Amino acid sequence: MKKRILIVGGVAGGASAAARLRRNSEEDEIIMFEKGPHVSFSNCSLPYHLSGVVDEADKLILMNPKKFKSHYNIDARVNSEVISIDRTNKQVSIKDVLTGEIYKETYDKLILSPGAKPIVPNIAGSDKVKIFTVRNVVDIDKLNNYAKSMDSKDIAVIGGGYVGVEVAENLKEAGFNVSLIEAMDQILKPFDYDMVQILHKELYDHGVNLIVGDKVESFEENVVVLSSGRKVSAKIVVMAIGVSPEVNLATDAGIKLGETKAIKVDKNYRTHDEDIYAVGDAIEVYNELTHSMTKLSLAGPAQKEARSVADHINNRKTLNKGYIGSSAIKVFDYNGASTGLNESLIKFLNMNINYEVVRLIASDKVGIMPDSSPMHFKLLFEVPTGKILGAQAIGKGDVTKRIDVIATSIKFNGTVEDLKDLELCYAPPFGTAKDIVNYAGYIGSNLLNCDFKQVNVDKVRDLVEEEAYIIDVREKVEYDNGHIIGANNIPLSELRSRINEIPKDKKVYVHCRTGQRSYNATLALQHLGYTNIYNITGSFLALSFYEYFNDKTTDRKSIVTKYNFK
Amino acid sequence: MKKRILIVGGVAGGASAAARLRRNSEEDEIIMFEKGPHVSFSNCSLPYHLSGVVDEADKLILMNPKKFKSHYNIDARVNSEVISIDRTNKQVSIKDVLTGEIYKETYDKLILSPGAKPIVPNIAGSDKVKIFTVRNVVDIDKLNNYAKSMDSKDIAVIGGGYVGVEVAENLKEAGFNVSLIEAMDQILKPFDYDMVQILHKELYDHGVNLIVGDKVESFEENVVVLSSGRKVSAKIVVMAIGVSPEVNLATDAGIKLGETKAIKVDKNYRTHDEDIYAVGDAIEVYNELTHSMTKLSLAGPAQKEARSVADHINNRKTLNKGYIGSSAIKVFDYNGASTGLNESLIKFLNMNINYEVVRLIASDKVGIMPDSSPMHFKLLFEVPTGKILGAQAIGKGDVTKRIDVIATSIKFNGTVEDLKDLELCYAPPFGTAKDIVNYAGYIGSNLLNCDFKQVNVDKVRDLVEEEAYIIDVREKVEYDNGHIIGANNIPLSELRSRINEIPKDKKVYVHCRTGQRSYNATLALQHLGYTNIYNITGSFLALSFYEYFNDKTTDRKSIVTKYNFK
Repeated sequence: MKKRILIVGGVAGGASAAARLRRNSEEDEIIMFEKGPHVSFSNCSLPYHLSGVVDEADKLILMNPKKFKSHYNIDARVNSEVISIDRTNKQVSIKDVLTGEIYKETYDKLILSPGAKPIVPNIAGSDKVKIFTVRNVVDIDKLNNYAKSMDSKDIAVIGGGYVGVEVAENLKEAGFNVSLIEAMDQILKPFDYDMVQILHKELYDHGVNLIVGDKVESFEENVVVLSSGRKVSAKIVVMAIGVSPEVNLATDAGIKLGETKAIKVDKNYRTHDEDIYAVGDAIEVYNELTHSMTKLSLAGPAQKEARSVADHINNRKTLNKGYIGSSAIKVFDYNGASTGLNESLIKFLNMNINYEVVRLIASDKVGIMPDSSPMHFKLLFEVPTGKILGAQAIGKGDVTKRIDVIATSIKFNGTVEDLKDLELCYAPPFGTAKDIVNYAGYIGSNLLNCDFKQVNVDKVRDLVEEEAYIIDVREKVEYDNGHIIGANNIPLSELRSRINEIPKDKKVYVHCRTGQRSYNATLALQHLGYTNIYNITGSFLALSFYEYFNDKTTDRKSIVTKYNFK
Repeated sequence: MKKRILIVGGVAGGASAAARLRRNSEEDEIIMFEKGPHVSFSNCSLPYHLSGVVDEADKLILMNPKKFKSHYNIDARVNSEVISIDRTNKQVSIKDVLTGEIYKETYDKLILSPGAKPIVPNIAGSDKVKIFTVRNVVDIDKLNNYAKSMDSKDIAVIGGGYVGVEVAENLKEAGFNVSLIEAMDQILKPFDYDMVQILHKELYDHGVNLIVGDKVESFEENVVVLSSGRKVSAKIVVMAIGVSPEVNLATDAGIKLGETKAIKVDKNYRTHDEDIYAVGDAIEVYNELTHSMTKLSLAGPAQKEARSVADHINNRKTLNKGYIGSSAIKVFDYNGASTGLNESLIKFLNMNINYEVVRLIASDKVGIMPDSSPMHFKLLFEVPTGKILGAQAIGKGDVTKRIDVIATSIKFNGTVEDLKDLELCYAPPFGTAKDIVNYAGYIGSNLLNCDFKQVNVDKVRDLVEEEAYIIDVREKVEYDNGHIIGANNIPLSELRSRINEIPKDKKVYVHCRTGQRSYNATLALQHLGYTNIYNITGSFLALSFYEYFNDKTTDRKSIVTKYNFK
């Protein structure tokens, strides 16, 4: 039976639903309303127009109404805002935003894909700077044109989420003086504090004026005033502190919201009205790891939801096992990726879960390949089951590959034991025979078996202050190129012959460059009768990254003689 | 209790076993014998010395005996060939290959990691060319020095396996005239014939004289004579037709071989002598997909086996679920990766398995990113279970990421339905919101549901010859830039208005550039009452790659007016 399906909003959710609906049925009438001028564009690519990586704004537009009509027989109406839903009569009112004309359309099924809007808080002096947000092609085009024609180079980006960081990076690449201001003590919440320091450093090293732990208080003439009293010059302010789901249309129609104030949907993305579905940034979804509802602002899930809705409308079986959330970001020369839970989320949610952390640094490809580089990797797993909970990777190389493998393993309820067993592709240009993921499995399995004890680099400052016994098992030449103040240099190559120097009556902390030699030393010492040995995971390399940004931007005292990032 | 453990052979298997043995016990005596001068080197990186990617041969050496001693208290003896095993008295005889001296060492446990040796067939005229093999650092150094000092640029590489192709590529990069000769009709057996044509083309386009389906018959003075009578100029011949397990030491000692003539081991990599283990290229392992024994020449599995052995010797639980075989290769600007089964293996083994194939081409990252490029992807799954059997990917971008995800899914007994549900990392520099792997899951699921029918590009030549009805749904400008001879151009944008041109009484084959538009067209036609519609998977782009190499190197007639690789 021929159906009439209306879709509110295009882009990832709406446009995907429309295309799938057509593939499912040639006879259904499909009308998609988009209040903006573009019904389908690459949302996630918007920031890349600022640097010219995407040289023309028009390239961001993927499909136009004419093509939707000719290719898919889909009626896509732009500049068309759906202003109300009459659920009783199953019809919506649409306002043509160009003419102001209002008209109605009836539906058999209605799909809401309104998205989320950038949050713009009410801050004193908002008229003293030029404020932009980044949601669509019109926004980015406006920002780009204004920035490039203004007589100043000073721009402040408020908010260190994905959009804020990408906008800051791309504006910096375009030659602007960029300040990136984040109220929390770190940017990019999908990464834990110890991991994200690498990206803090990368932004700092590339000349972005990164300010964390300071909040925008007010604006003065081309100046951002922070809580600390600090003033930042900025003719343009890009607001990127977050988004809030577009729910007004839904709530006005009496459609229920969930606990997160996003639209509540069932397994099939249906609202409590059986003829109305909702997808994308406007809904809340089930996080299969936290066992709670969450808002995801990710294009992949939006497309998946849209497809499910189109299938459910056409009586096709759909799948909804919940979400884990996987994402990635490029920050200048570094790449970061994450999936599942991280430590800060576990703490934030007060989750009652016993977990352990694998933290390692390993070469992303065979060390003698000219472009090999260290990858920082963090894996969380449940104790005692070994079930993988989440992972983060940061490095210059292929981080998404490793996190995709972990994301896949999580979806299959994999454990650290399973990671040991994975057969991943290897050739010197791509990786190492034992991949970082395998290593993580081995270390996780060793930790589960209580083969050794560890501390993370975030504890080293405390250790130095309490004058703990730290052994640096690197060779002397490495030690001389920068070491922890107060550490004892006993190279692994001399460990067994100098064993008498190591006290048996106190805790001993061992490190090397990345944690691998010190792991060997840790086990050797245990076998030799030492019972209180801790490996410092990540070791001197992770420590250097961990301490650098705060050392550079605060007046605190360094705990190393010199950094070494090699 | 202190154990005495001897290891025959270093590199991936032996050296990994030694290191893990030491981590498991500080008191055990560990002696490793290597008949060559280097106990640990990057085997897989050897070819990269020829092009200078690894500029010095010494860099290929990862560890030396001195370091093994000082770091791990492991007695690594180079130039030491184990010539016999006395199982009754649990001792081996070792020959110092420099002095000729022979001595004995006893063992509690013995680990065999002798590897495999390059096969050098007996070919008439072998003294008329200079023959090299590539097994170790000495070999590659010799080849490199000889090649670079000789008065000719002509080199022939015999055998199109991984080593042969990598050697050919790196010699070509170094400026030599390289002929790569393969007796079978294709190189690189982990890829099916339809996929590998992309790599055939890549070698051909980069000036490698690639000859397939022709066998070396004899050698004349600096000439390779092939079965076809063709003669190839070559002062150097690199023999890379394959390897055979080093089993003489084992068989001389009465250790049993398996059905593949490699050393037979149990779950814990133990031979039928309970004190003797074997790992690496010399053993056969269980392939969990073919359910048969197989020889793997891969570094990753060798290291895993070695670790398992070291753990089993120390009473630690080990895991052996069998192997699926994952591998990767770079061929000039293209990358290829594969895992699990492919069609040729299924046919070769006469496996009684009902499978279906997903063949797609999709952008490896958001299309507007400057370095995005099409990735060719092939997935095999079982019908009707949907269980994933294997996959291959070839493209300029990140193929190993996608194949690693598939390899991981196979290890977890995943199905095409599971692939739809994977949440993979997305940002425009890394991929697309719906990753190629997700796409493959969707298509696989559609095929399982019999939503549409398909033919692969390898059938198109037949279709052209039998004058089948083919619709090219690309726009006219694309059609004019090269099309299948005899195809009817009805753009997707005109499909519905020109529906009357399409015959209802015969099979209709539909294609576009990559298969996505034609998939939409296929479904539309089905919904419009056409029952015999086939989508040509991969479409014109895959067809161009499929036909090119043979069109260029044989005298057959082309079935397209012009190729298009964009």
